[in-house]
Amino acid sequence: MDGLQFFQQSAGDWKSLRTTHHLPFRRAETGGSDIHVEALDAQDSRISEICQMHEVDPATAVGGAFVSWDGAMEWDQEDEDHSGTSVFSLVPDENSPQKGKLLRERGYAEVVPVIGQYHIDHEEALVLITDYETMSINERFWFPHPDVRLRASTVKRFGGLSTATFCAEIRTDQAETSAEKTTTSEPISSFWGW
Amino acid sequence: MDGLQFFQQSAGDWKSLRTTHHLPFRRAETGGSDIHVEALDAQDSRISEICQMHEVDPATAVGGAFVSWDGAMEWDQEDEDHSGTSVFSLVPDENSPQKGKLLRERGYAEVVPVIGQYHIDHEEALVLITDYETMSINERFWFPHPDVRLRASTVKRFGGLSTATFCAEIRTDQAETSAEKTTTSEPISSFWGW
Repeated sequence: MDGLQFFQQSAGDWKSLRTTHHLPFRRAETGGSDIHVEALDAQDSRISEICQMHEVDPATAVGGAFVSWDGAMEWDQEDEDHSGTSVFSLVPDENSPQKGKLLRERGYAEVVPVIGQYHIDHEEALVLITDYETMSINERFWFPHPDVRLRASTVKRFGGLSTATFCAEIRTDQAETSAEKTTTSEPISSFWGW
Repeated sequence: MDGLQFFQQSAGDWKSLRTTHHLPFRRAETGGSDIHVEALDAQDSRISEICQMHEVDPATAVGGAFVSWDGAMEWDQEDEDHSGTSVFSLVPDENSPQKGKLLRERGYAEVVPVIGQYHIDHEEALVLITDYETMSINERFWFPHPDVRLRASTVKRFGGLSTATFCAEIRTDQAETSAEKTTTSEPISSFWGW
C-alpha cells in the first residue's frame, strides 16, 4: 500500500460514526456523517490547482481525492455546520511512494494553506501529521477490511493533549457490506480483560 | 519502548471510555470501566504460575501485569458482568525485547489458555494479535501522553470482520490529569474534513 492506493481504496460512499473524547473533561461526544470520496488522477485540474496554491510543481503530484461530507455531532450548537468539501493532492518523496506531503485546498482548523506529512506504517496504515501554528494533529487511518476504514486521531494544542477522536467508517456504496453478520452478544474480546 | 516498559507505563488507575462498533449492523455501543493495573516483576509468583500453565520456562519471562476492571456497556443484559481480574506474563523473543509472546491467565473469549503475539511498532504502539479457534483479535495500544492510553481493536470471526472497538483511557491516580484544559468548542480538526 502506498499513499495513492490508500486514496483509491477510500473512493466511494461511507457512513462515518465518530466519538470525540474531550480528554481534560473526561467526556465523550458522538456524531455521524455521510462521506463521499472520489479518487483524482494526477492530470485532474483540481490537483494542479492545489499544487500551484502551495507553490509545488504539479508534475510531482501523483493524484489525490475530492471529499465531501455532511454530518452532525451531539453537542452541536445551532450555527454549527459539519458539511463541506475538500481536495487533496499527494506529493510523495522523490525516492519513496510510502511517504511525502499531502496538500490540502484549505485548512478547516486554521485559515492558512495546509500541508501534512504522511507515511504508510508497517501495519499498512496511513499516518498523517499536520502542524498548525498553535496545534498539531496526528491521524492514523487503516482498512481492517476493504469495506471498513478506521481512524484514530489526537490533537495537541499549545503542547497539551486536548482530544482523541475515533471513527469507524463503513462503505455504503454496495448493496450489502461484506462484513460478516454475527449476533451482537459477544464475550469480552480484549486481551486486556476490559 | 519495549513490551515491559509498556506495562510499566500502564501501571495505575484508569477511567476507560469504550465505543464498540458492531460493523455488520452499523450500530455503535458505548460503555465505561474503571481499570487498575499493577506492573509485576519477573520474580512475582503469579508470573511463574502463568508460565507453568502455558509450559513456558519462567526464566524467559521479563515481568507482566495484574489487571482488574469493573465496567458496564450500554446494551448489557441483566446477567452481564464486565468485571474481573487477569494476570499477564511477557516473554520476549530471544533477540528482541520489541516482540514476543504475551501469556494470559485465562481467555475470556474462549475457555482455553491464551497466548498472544505482540510487537512494538514504529509509532511506539503495542500491537497484539490473538488467534482463537473461531476468531482473531488485533489490538493496538498507544500513549499519546503519559496519562492517556488509547486503543483500537478489531475482531474477525470465521474470517468476517465483526466489531471495531475504541477506548480512550485517562489516568485517575493523580490529583489532576496533566492534559491541558481547553474549551470544548473547537473547529473540525481532521485533515480529511470530517
